[in-house]
Amino acid sequence: MSVPKTQKAVVFETNGGELEYKDIPVPKPAANEILINVKYSGVCHTDLHAWKGDWPLATKLPLVGGHEGAGVVVGIGENVKGWKLGDLAGIKWLNGSCMACESCELSNESNCPHADLSGYTHDGSFQQYATADAVQAARIPEGTDLAEVAPILCAGITVYKALKSANLRAGNWVAISGAAGGLGSLAVQYAKAMGYRVIGIDGGEEKEQLFKKLGGEYFVDFRTSKDVIAEILEVTGGGAHGVVNVSVSEAAIEASTHYVRANGTVVLVGLPGGAKCSSDVFNHVVKSISIVGSYVGNRADTRQALDFFARGLVKSPIKVVGLSELPDVFEKMEKGQIAGRYVVDTAK
Amino acid sequence: MSVPKTQKAVVFETNGGELEYKDIPVPKPAANEILINVKYSGVCHTDLHAWKGDWPLATKLPLVGGHEGAGVVVGIGENVKGWKLGDLAGIKWLNGSCMACESCELSNESNCPHADLSGYTHDGSFQQYATADAVQAARIPEGTDLAEVAPILCAGITVYKALKSANLRAGNWVAISGAAGGLGSLAVQYAKAMGYRVIGIDGGEEKEQLFKKLGGEYFVDFRTSKDVIAEILEVTGGGAHGVVNVSVSEAAIEASTHYVRANGTVVLVGLPGGAKCSSDVFNHVVKSISIVGSYVGNRADTRQALDFFARGLVKSPIKVVGLSELPDVFEKMEKGQIAGRYVVDTAK
Amino acid sequence: MSVPKTQKAVVFETNGGELEYKDIPVPKPAANEILINVKYSGVCHTDLHAWKGDWPLATKLPLVGGHEGAGVVVGIGENVKGWKLGDLAGIKWLNGSCMACESCELSNESNCPHADLSGYTHDGSFQQYATADAVQAARIPEGTDLAEVAPILCAGITVYKALKSANLRAGNWVAISGAAGGLGSLAVQYAKAMGYRVIGIDGGEEKEQLFKKLGGEYFVDFRTSKDVIAEILEVTGGGAHGVVNVSVSEAAIEASTHYVRANGTVVLVGLPGGAKCSSDVFNHVVKSISIVGSYVGNRADTRQALDFFARGLVKSPIKVVGLSELPDVFEKMEKGQIAGRYVVDTAK
Amino acid sequence: MSVPKTQKAVVFETNGGELEYKDIPVPKPAANEILINVKYSGVCHTDLHAWKGDWPLATKLPLVGGHEGAGVVVGIGENVKGWKLGDLAGIKWLNGSCMACESCELSNESNCPHADLSGYTHDGSFQQYATADAVQAARIPEGTDLAEVAPILCAGITVYKALKSANLRAGNWVAISGAAGGLGSLAVQYAKAMGYRVIGIDGGEEKEQLFKKLGGEYFVDFRTSKDVIAEILEVTGGGAHGVVNVSVSEAAIEASTHYVRANGTVVLVGLPGGAKCSSDVFNHVVKSISIVGSYVGNRADTRQALDFFARGLVKSPIKVVGLSELPDVFEKMEKGQIAGRYVVDTAK
Repeated sequence: MSVPKTQKAVVFETNGGELEYKDIPVPKPAANEILINVKYSGVCHTDLHAWKGDWPLATKLPLVGGHEGAGVVVGIGENVKGWKLGDLAGIKWLNGSCMACESCELSNESNCPHADLSGYTHDGSFQQYATADAVQAARIPEGTDLAEVAPILCAGITVYKALKSANLRAGNWVAISGAAGGLGSLAVQYAKAMGYRVIGIDGGEEKEQLFKKLGGEYFVDFRTSKDVIAEILEVTGGGAHGVVNVSVSEAAIEASTHYVRANGTVVLVGLPGGAKCSSDVFNHVVKSISIVGSYVGNRADTRQALDFFARGLVKSPIKVVGLSELPDVFEKMEKGQIAGRYVVDTAK
Repeated sequence: MSVPKTQKAVVFETNGGELEYKDIPVPKPAANEILINVKYSGVCHTDLHAWKGDWPLATKLPLVGGHEGAGVVVGIGENVKGWKLGDLAGIKWLNGSCMACESCELSNESNCPHADLSGYTHDGSFQQYATADAVQAARIPEGTDLAEVAPILCAGITVYKALKSANLRAGNWVAISGAAGGLGSLAVQYAKAMGYRVIGIDGGEEKEQLFKKLGGEYFVDFRTSKDVIAEILEVTGGGAHGVVNVSVSEAAIEASTHYVRANGTVVLVGLPGGAKCSSDVFNHVVKSISIVGSYVGNRADTRQALDFFARGLVKSPIKVVGLSELPDVFEKMEKGQIAGRYVVDTAK
Repeated sequence: MSVPKTQKAVVFETNGGELEYKDIPVPKPAANEILINVKYSGVCHTDLHAWKGDWPLATKLPLVGGHEGAGVVVGIGENVKGWKLGDLAGIKWLNGSCMACESCELSNESNCPHADLSGYTHDGSFQQYATADAVQAARIPEGTDLAEVAPILCAGITVYKALKSANLRAGNWVAISGAAGGLGSLAVQYAKAMGYRVIGIDGGEEKEQLFKKLGGEYFVDFRTSKDVIAEILEVTGGGAHGVVNVSVSEAAIEASTHYVRANGTVVLVGLPGGAKCSSDVFNHVVKSISIVGSYVGNRADTRQALDFFARGLVKSPIKVVGLSELPDVFEKMEKGQIAGRYVVDTAK
Repeated sequence: MSVPKTQKAVVFETNGGELEYKDIPVPKPAANEILINVKYSGVCHTDLHAWKGDWPLATKLPLVGGHEGAGVVVGIGENVKGWKLGDLAGIKWLNGSCMACESCELSNESNCPHADLSGYTHDGSFQQYATADAVQAARIPEGTDLAEVAPILCAGITVYKALKSANLRAGNWVAISGAAGGLGSLAVQYAKAMGYRVIGIDGGEEKEQLFKKLGGEYFVDFRTSKDVIAEILEVTGGGAHGVVNVSVSEAAIEASTHYVRANGTVVLVGLPGGAKCSSDVFNHVVKSISIVGSYVGNRADTRQALDFFARGLVKSPIKVVGLSELPDVFEKMEKGQIAGRYVVDTAK
């Protein structure tokens, strides 16, 4: 495979500064890295946060964002084992970790204090050729559609991990708060594939129809429900065994501590800057509930989430635009005008 | 054994009303109950809450309080198996549960919605003869000191269960917030017996000495520490693997979400009316921590907690007074003048 | 509801003795029991073992066998809570346990050393009216077909529990050895409903067709496979994550220790008298596999297994005959002439 | 640090061939490796198996054996992070794994099909300078005695992992079969530090004394016990919750399936070539026991096992001889003349 010297990318020099679509050099893989020819990249809310510098963790600057990149291996560092040219590979949020700390040893490499993050501390997938740590890069099964799999690499893995964090068994009720949004609609499908009975919470008839189509069992419309908590307690016979809060509303999170069942688990998964999770201690103790934070998946979660997708159990509805249009996508995202997931084609 | 017709008890007719030390009839055990000649009963903060009616759950009225009663079986209902006259038996917070709901089936009988509570919805241990559900009554090993074991029946079981809820392995660091109080000093000993490395948080040199004597490894004095969070992160090399919040201060609970390690567990165990547990969502997610409510123990926790005590691994420092002096004990408790655990002798 | 004084039942006086279809008195429920008007009862291999006295545990004599009885509550002992006349109720293998030992406390009541067994140490479901312990009796959801649910009460719960004992996550491969028999075909359906990928091992094309129809993914025909172990290692990419040995062949069990994946679980669930489970220690250790015995389910397993059935995720193909024909059914069973599950109608 | 060109080592050219103590070149660390100046190395039964070629897995030839090496980092590959010259480092059985397979992803790297083994497929610690994979090399706490820690690097980690595999809680009974041998006496100490109640099974008064000195609670002398199984069932009130079979006797292993408690775990940990583990299926199922293979520890187990040692909770009684005397040690080992652990000093 011939790899060019330069490529197209979207770069910014300062947080919140201009998003330039321009030619930059193709990077060289270090000894422990592979070089991926990124074909498609999903656009995630996190990319917007990274560009704007919203979080209490500094980004690399200048930065090529993006952490949902799907492509083909075109270069391999000298020290890498287990990859060959032509393999399908994915760039995900966690680019690399130290592999030596207690978190890494326990397969919690996403929680490594030395984590290297794609499109944040390491140039990401909003370019045609990106380097990726060979240990962490996602192994995409042969024959997978690279555009459709892109959002699975962050959104899919993240909701799948959140569902695992809810610690449920097949047949249990899981409530998805924000069930018909981008993350939520993936969560509903994963939950269904895992054998759970799915309750969706969202607003409007259109969302209810989408939810039901994806395999959801019972929809609670927060706009019309007389009492969301009472309705869920009633339909589940005592509360949902688990809740995945895709919605990051503080009120919705607090409500979830009331409609979760005794000994059940409330999962937090979004990253709203500055938000608080609040629960009533009396209720928390007497019902013996857990409130669990779930971050992005590790290597095993990645393999598993991709496997569900490759087996056709999860569909990822996307809208493909050119990489050059990324600034427009960010603008729409900021205005809350996006339904579903945008994917950029790096060739355009 | 001859059982009298009447007995001494402390009774109140209304929440917050007079605590009368007087003669009342000895109750008869129902078909599924045993009758216990209570020799000693611990006095717990919960008894004060019950008397005052502080919680969002109504008490039986009139009520004989008390739920840490240790005594001898003197009567057995016709349908009871597995008990014989003369056995040592304990009255604990959970007097009985439905044994038919999902919580009961999963051994979470403390979370049964039909739970019957000693000294709250069922007359408790502040009397000489009390009835107790035969399934839930605690089996106290022969030869146990009945005065010293009394506080184990609630305080001991509760902190033991909280430590189990922290989901640790031997060698892990556990922080006890409020380490030198009545519950805390039991928690330190149980934690030590479970192989954990114990950090205590409390105030003052006397408390530090008590903590160290009980087997604690590192003491953080919140009165003099420059930065409690930083100090714990430093000494543990990244945070405590688990935290048991015996202290019910909202600020202390929130702090614990910061000095707990990634993937660690913060346990809530006290029941302060109206208090909130608040955590920063970003930190909660990125560190993937769990905040877990731990209520009172089930039958298995009871057996295990008593076993640690019977084997001499946990000491329970008590001050014994007569049952007739219970009103004074409540008064001191309300004024915060109690250090350690009061136990009432029902014969006085 | 009027309950008659006498009823039809199948009784035997000695192990292996005559199976008499005759009139016997209707039993009276004890204080902790309910009386069930049994409508249908499944016939399980265990009933044959009980009659013949094959196991190292003596049966009650004379005995009414049967432990898969589905019916209606027509009597309630004075001490019973949580049941009302007209409720649907099921008789299952575990009729009652002590509720006081370590096994019972941990919800492992099936392992209680004082377990009371329906159709073994307690008269069972081969009669029109049977008593059952109120705590252990199965709660059958309203509207359930009583003939079809009968085999779920032992066969269904047992394979469901075995699948839980395999400790899998959705997406894992589970192999069912003996996939197209009575237990196996239930196991395939439960496994599918739990989100597992199912490999079936059995012999013949007809069995393959049944397996595929039930939702199985890959069939290994032991009659034609060149190498069962190699074939499973190949198709699963390293071995099944779990194996449920419904087949009780010693050779099949030993083979399963070789086609299970590293860190996977082999489950034993049948009760062949005298059979041995043998594994190569080197392989056992280096692959770090577990061989786990799974007995009948507890109350929670019962509720869950019935819930899958009530939701239509598991079908139970049965053949209904009259209770009076039970001796013929036993004869066929002994000759190995039974495919699927016989259910007796107690009215005939 | 100056590293010489040549060094002393014990090498063999063929399995069972001459063990030559001679000068060989000092190896160079690859990009992902560190170079360790091995000061001391334990001698393990596995080294004898490797030399003789006893196992169904070929060794590298010629080979420098040894996999319990403790030393100092004197060289670092260009791609390595997280190590610095002068750090204390340990060589353990698992030298390296692929980090890409399902086992590695789940932290079960010891079960990686591409595992690279020290002193087996990679030259080990019977030399003065050895290379080791930077990810897998053990991090030995500063100030640790390098001779005493050597046996912890295999024997210690292995028994610690076996105890973890028994899946116990503090206060549970664990039986160690072969309690007073080299592995057994480490197991007793780890078990004690983990809060378990320890039963030791071995033969003779001297062994009983050693066992008690190490913190064991109850000793069963198989030479004098009337009935080992009955004795353990009696003293534990129903069976040990877990059993670690350090002894590799087939009869002892089968016995352990009878004295383990219902729902308990029997752990296999030794690697006797050709031995079988046999259990009675009826007992296995009705008691719902697990028989679990436990191989060597992963990185987390390593850190934890070393931490217990560094905190003084585990002592490792050793006999130090020169590396040149290794052939004599092997000879004694083969004749069964070794009590305790031999450690070779590479300087002699």
